[in-house]
Amino acid sequence: MKTLRLFGAHDLRLLDEPAPTPAAGEALLKVASVGICGSDTHWFSEGNIGGVPLTQPLVLGHEFTAVVASGDQRGKRVAVDPAIPCGRCEFCEEGNPNLCPSVLFAGTGTVDGALAEYISWPARNLFPLPDSVSNIDGALLEPLGVAMHALSLAPVRPGMSVGVYGCGPIGLLIVQLARLSGAIHIFASDLREERLQAALDTGASEVFMADDRERDKVRAATRNRGVDVAFEAAGADGAVETAMVTCKPGGRVVIVGIPSEDRTTFTASVARKKGLTIMMCRRMKHTYPRSIELVASGRVNLKNLVTNFFPFAEYQNAFLTAEKRDGIKIVVELS
Amino acid sequence: MKTLRLFGAHDLRLLDEPAPTPAAGEALLKVASVGICGSDTHWFSEGNIGGVPLTQPLVLGHEFTAVVASGDQRGKRVAVDPAIPCGRCEFCEEGNPNLCPSVLFAGTGTVDGALAEYISWPARNLFPLPDSVSNIDGALLEPLGVAMHALSLAPVRPGMSVGVYGCGPIGLLIVQLARLSGAIHIFASDLREERLQAALDTGASEVFMADDRERDKVRAATRNRGVDVAFEAAGADGAVETAMVTCKPGGRVVIVGIPSEDRTTFTASVARKKGLTIMMCRRMKHTYPRSIELVASGRVNLKNLVTNFFPFAEYQNAFLTAEKRDGIKIVVELS
Amino acid sequence: MKTLRLFGAHDLRLLDEPAPTPAAGEALLKVASVGICGSDTHWFSEGNIGGVPLTQPLVLGHEFTAVVASGDQRGKRVAVDPAIPCGRCEFCEEGNPNLCPSVLFAGTGTVDGALAEYISWPARNLFPLPDSVSNIDGALLEPLGVAMHALSLAPVRPGMSVGVYGCGPIGLLIVQLARLSGAIHIFASDLREERLQAALDTGASEVFMADDRERDKVRAATRNRGVDVAFEAAGADGAVETAMVTCKPGGRVVIVGIPSEDRTTFTASVARKKGLTIMMCRRMKHTYPRSIELVASGRVNLKNLVTNFFPFAEYQNAFLTAEKRDGIKIVVELS
Amino acid sequence: MKTLRLFGAHDLRLLDEPAPTPAAGEALLKVASVGICGSDTHWFSEGNIGGVPLTQPLVLGHEFTAVVASGDQRGKRVAVDPAIPCGRCEFCEEGNPNLCPSVLFAGTGTVDGALAEYISWPARNLFPLPDSVSNIDGALLEPLGVAMHALSLAPVRPGMSVGVYGCGPIGLLIVQLARLSGAIHIFASDLREERLQAALDTGASEVFMADDRERDKVRAATRNRGVDVAFEAAGADGAVETAMVTCKPGGRVVIVGIPSEDRTTFTASVARKKGLTIMMCRRMKHTYPRSIELVASGRVNLKNLVTNFFPFAEYQNAFLTAEKRDGIKIVVELS
Repeated sequence: MKTLRLFGAHDLRLLDEPAPTPAAGEALLKVASVGICGSDTHWFSEGNIGGVPLTQPLVLGHEFTAVVASGDQRGKRVAVDPAIPCGRCEFCEEGNPNLCPSVLFAGTGTVDGALAEYISWPARNLFPLPDSVSNIDGALLEPLGVAMHALSLAPVRPGMSVGVYGCGPIGLLIVQLARLSGAIHIFASDLREERLQAALDTGASEVFMADDRERDKVRAATRNRGVDVAFEAAGADGAVETAMVTCKPGGRVVIVGIPSEDRTTFTASVARKKGLTIMMCRRMKHTYPRSIELVASGRVNLKNLVTNFFPFAEYQNAFLTAEKRDGIKIVVELS
Repeated sequence: MKTLRLFGAHDLRLLDEPAPTPAAGEALLKVASVGICGSDTHWFSEGNIGGVPLTQPLVLGHEFTAVVASGDQRGKRVAVDPAIPCGRCEFCEEGNPNLCPSVLFAGTGTVDGALAEYISWPARNLFPLPDSVSNIDGALLEPLGVAMHALSLAPVRPGMSVGVYGCGPIGLLIVQLARLSGAIHIFASDLREERLQAALDTGASEVFMADDRERDKVRAATRNRGVDVAFEAAGADGAVETAMVTCKPGGRVVIVGIPSEDRTTFTASVARKKGLTIMMCRRMKHTYPRSIELVASGRVNLKNLVTNFFPFAEYQNAFLTAEKRDGIKIVVELS
Repeated sequence: MKTLRLFGAHDLRLLDEPAPTPAAGEALLKVASVGICGSDTHWFSEGNIGGVPLTQPLVLGHEFTAVVASGDQRGKRVAVDPAIPCGRCEFCEEGNPNLCPSVLFAGTGTVDGALAEYISWPARNLFPLPDSVSNIDGALLEPLGVAMHALSLAPVRPGMSVGVYGCGPIGLLIVQLARLSGAIHIFASDLREERLQAALDTGASEVFMADDRERDKVRAATRNRGVDVAFEAAGADGAVETAMVTCKPGGRVVIVGIPSEDRTTFTASVARKKGLTIMMCRRMKHTYPRSIELVASGRVNLKNLVTNFFPFAEYQNAFLTAEKRDGIKIVVELS
Repeated sequence: MKTLRLFGAHDLRLLDEPAPTPAAGEALLKVASVGICGSDTHWFSEGNIGGVPLTQPLVLGHEFTAVVASGDQRGKRVAVDPAIPCGRCEFCEEGNPNLCPSVLFAGTGTVDGALAEYISWPARNLFPLPDSVSNIDGALLEPLGVAMHALSLAPVRPGMSVGVYGCGPIGLLIVQLARLSGAIHIFASDLREERLQAALDTGASEVFMADDRERDKVRAATRNRGVDVAFEAAGADGAVETAMVTCKPGGRVVIVGIPSEDRTTFTASVARKKGLTIMMCRRMKHTYPRSIELVASGRVNLKNLVTNFFPFAEYQNAFLTAEKRDGIKIVVELS
């Protein structure tokens, strides 16, 4: 089968490799569509992520839809949960598999991901898709799960006002879920005009260029009260500070973005005087069934996030486009 | 001024009385619209409520809009919070004024309510209405507040399934808020066809006649899993049991209805095996500003609840209609 | 090996049976000490529990310590978690294994329990005991886990006042944990003098005979405010009502007891006016490691609960003593 | 009366001024004992706090006991809540008076504090002290309230492990409350030996010098799992980082200290991978009645925090001692 491996920064190679053999409890999957995540782009551009270097040639890709190619479920289209938590540590047992210290995750460390014709994966991580959920939708259920987790850390309720700072795919999904949760005022900011437009299309009530004045604008728009919940989804110190400055006293700030620099700085006195609660968002919990229902029922729209499609053979183009941050979500179609 | 007093069961008298003089901190209000609540109907029909008898001739009415007739705010249309908590007990200080043991409440006990041409009421309980919120809307902000409180006791989140048992005004508002919060499946039941139709119009996904088979139907509709949150809004033992039987393990049951019989019975083993959390819903918290925004922005529709309007002079008709439980919400228009 | 099977009400038979062979993932255990639980007594006395009849001759016993007799851990003294949740349903995945609909539980339904010389049980359910935790202590970690779960449903904090209605083993452990959590006033009631004395010895500040006047006494002792948290641990309607009547507005009532009659009745208006939260307590979560630390460090004392010991051969006496509700906790020692 | 005013950094002057006249709702108080808080020391040493300069000559002091000198309560010894929230904003109404944007606070901004022979203060802020609570105890109820609030932001439960980084008066009270809440392992660190000793005396199970190796030591002591809750009580970036590094996945970090530099920096990847919740602790809620009970019952000991007493006339010495950070808590006795 064709397998795409990353050997170092910008060094992707398409190789012929034998298809994997499913272990006990696993199914063989024929990969259909793969979304490229910001973390994939970090690996591609820098050969490392958050200071952790590549330790072996790695198959990237953890947002994907596949068709089952072995066993009872053969022929079924499925979304795939890329996380394999241990299921036995105290964090798993308490319902926090996203915090499992020994989790395996597709396309990370020593675990090959989905940018190959076939992959073997635990059968319990597979979620059959109804006809109303396309392969593209299925590949985006993973980022939707992250956005769902972000909202579970700071529930949005009818009548609330919300700030979303950073309008990449996760930020836009947060906008959409905040709207679906009954938020009245959703303020969104980004550095790129087309993302601000996407935010408006998705449910934001007002958008701002992420510059020096955005904090004042959001504060003014809330009559200096601040928003009920502020989501940082840019992975930038400036957005962290904006979230804290624009959040109301007693409000919640959720840090979703992954900063490229590891040290984060914020104005402590602002956060303290307001008695803020700051939630650090780590991946997602088990949300596939609920997410599939939301997409199948049309309450959540994933298709409108995808701006670029590439066939597998054009993988190089796909990653270069992601690296330039053109478009919003890029999907590679394998079959 | 004209004042409508209840002297006993079915004994309403329209009297001429002097207009009240506002005390310090109060404003004189010219009453505009008054909604008739189930508790008003209890007083009218039985001369008591929950076993507590009438102790003096009482002016009923606590759901109302008025125009300020004294002071700085003269001329402003306002919604009126009917509750005057003490503000000093531990329950008030902890943000639970709805649990204040010495709360005063319009149209209850010794506190005259709104079915009179004028009423004096604390200025801090007045909430100016924007043009987009009508007098009728304003009178229904109080039941909306109860529904908001019910949802705050058991937050509904995107993708959840919800049961609402009892489709009077409060039940229908809960349906509407559950929908606004992103619920996918909303199952509603009632004894009356027209209320089931109203539930469908408001956002219910499936409705059931409240009979012996509703529990099985809801369980079947959830593939025997149960709903995430079950609201009892009928004030009936059967609805309490339905809520418990149809709620998922670990789910929340909110008891909103006021039963006419004071003893409530449920099957303990069902509730225990599922580890349910049962929330008893008492009145509402401070939600006027947020509720006004929800109505002003069109996210919540109150008008569609009102099925019958009566001028003040036809008060007898208004109460008899309420007593027969014809229609859904009845509003008396004073000016 | 010797196995004790229940064939019907009061029909216990000591049989010779082959020792079980551990399946994959299981270890063979030589049973050391077994506590007799109220549910065991229900089975023994009535041949059923909560209306569910015995379907096959059953080995009772789910509170036990054992010595590992096979595999890597051979020779280790272990406490044994009697619950085997499926690990895959949404309730397990969310950290609520106590709500798993397909849980297996020692000594219940078709799963033989610990009143036999040997039992095979999943290795992951075994918790090695340090020297400072005796076999007797180890057998009582299961009821301690139930009490821990009850407190997790209604956390007690420094300075709080607490009511505990019913002073059997679980009630007494709740008293002890409430004290350990910093409660100042702990009011306890029961029908038996010796249990009231045990409550005082364990940390209760005041005890009352469970009669018509206990509600007034607790209310008076709290200057009519009520307790912050009320635990029902008697399995009786009267105790449920006492919990609701004596709980403060906005407080939490935890229903821990298993009533013999399945219908529970309470005064709805009392619970509603106070906006109570009622938590139904179902078994326990994963608390063995934390519980073992509490006992090993001396912060929790389990030994003082055990009033009667019986060798295995005197099983009949053990169950008859339990049936008469003499003493508090009865332990059968097998080796 | 004698009044002590701060005119600028190190410029305290003892003046003769007329005693204040109580306004409506206020009582005249004869001040008894005043604790010197870290914020008082900031004002004294730098003439400003957190960048906010002195705007007028100010009477410091907000931790105090007094004797009522006017009205119904004349002659009563009382603890005094130094915060006067507005009682009307949404934050007050929701039970968060500590977040009130227009709160008045003794000894801050334009509100004179307690370092004078008399002060007028709202009667509802006065809490009569039983004989078992001394004047010294009463003055320390305010810092106890802060520690209570810190624990309410991250409840400690039986069996938990806790880190407390910074062992000034607040840190030591947190140690004490964590112990009272049932924590088994309490790790504390500070830069001063005598404070580590005080931590051990108060309930810490292990103490560490606050240096480069404390993080490794705490992690090792928890077998690399981390503590359940980590309290930062030093007001230093290093302690913030220690709290995040030593906290378990999914744990809570409470930031209680007031840093002298306004920018706080932490390693985002550490906090994100563990999905931490970070609570910013702002002052305290209404906890006087509960705190008084804890002290009166002997469950909390405040006396042992006070290392230095000064008569009013030696105010200069008192502040210089506080500035040098000798001792732990310094109390000025006025009468």
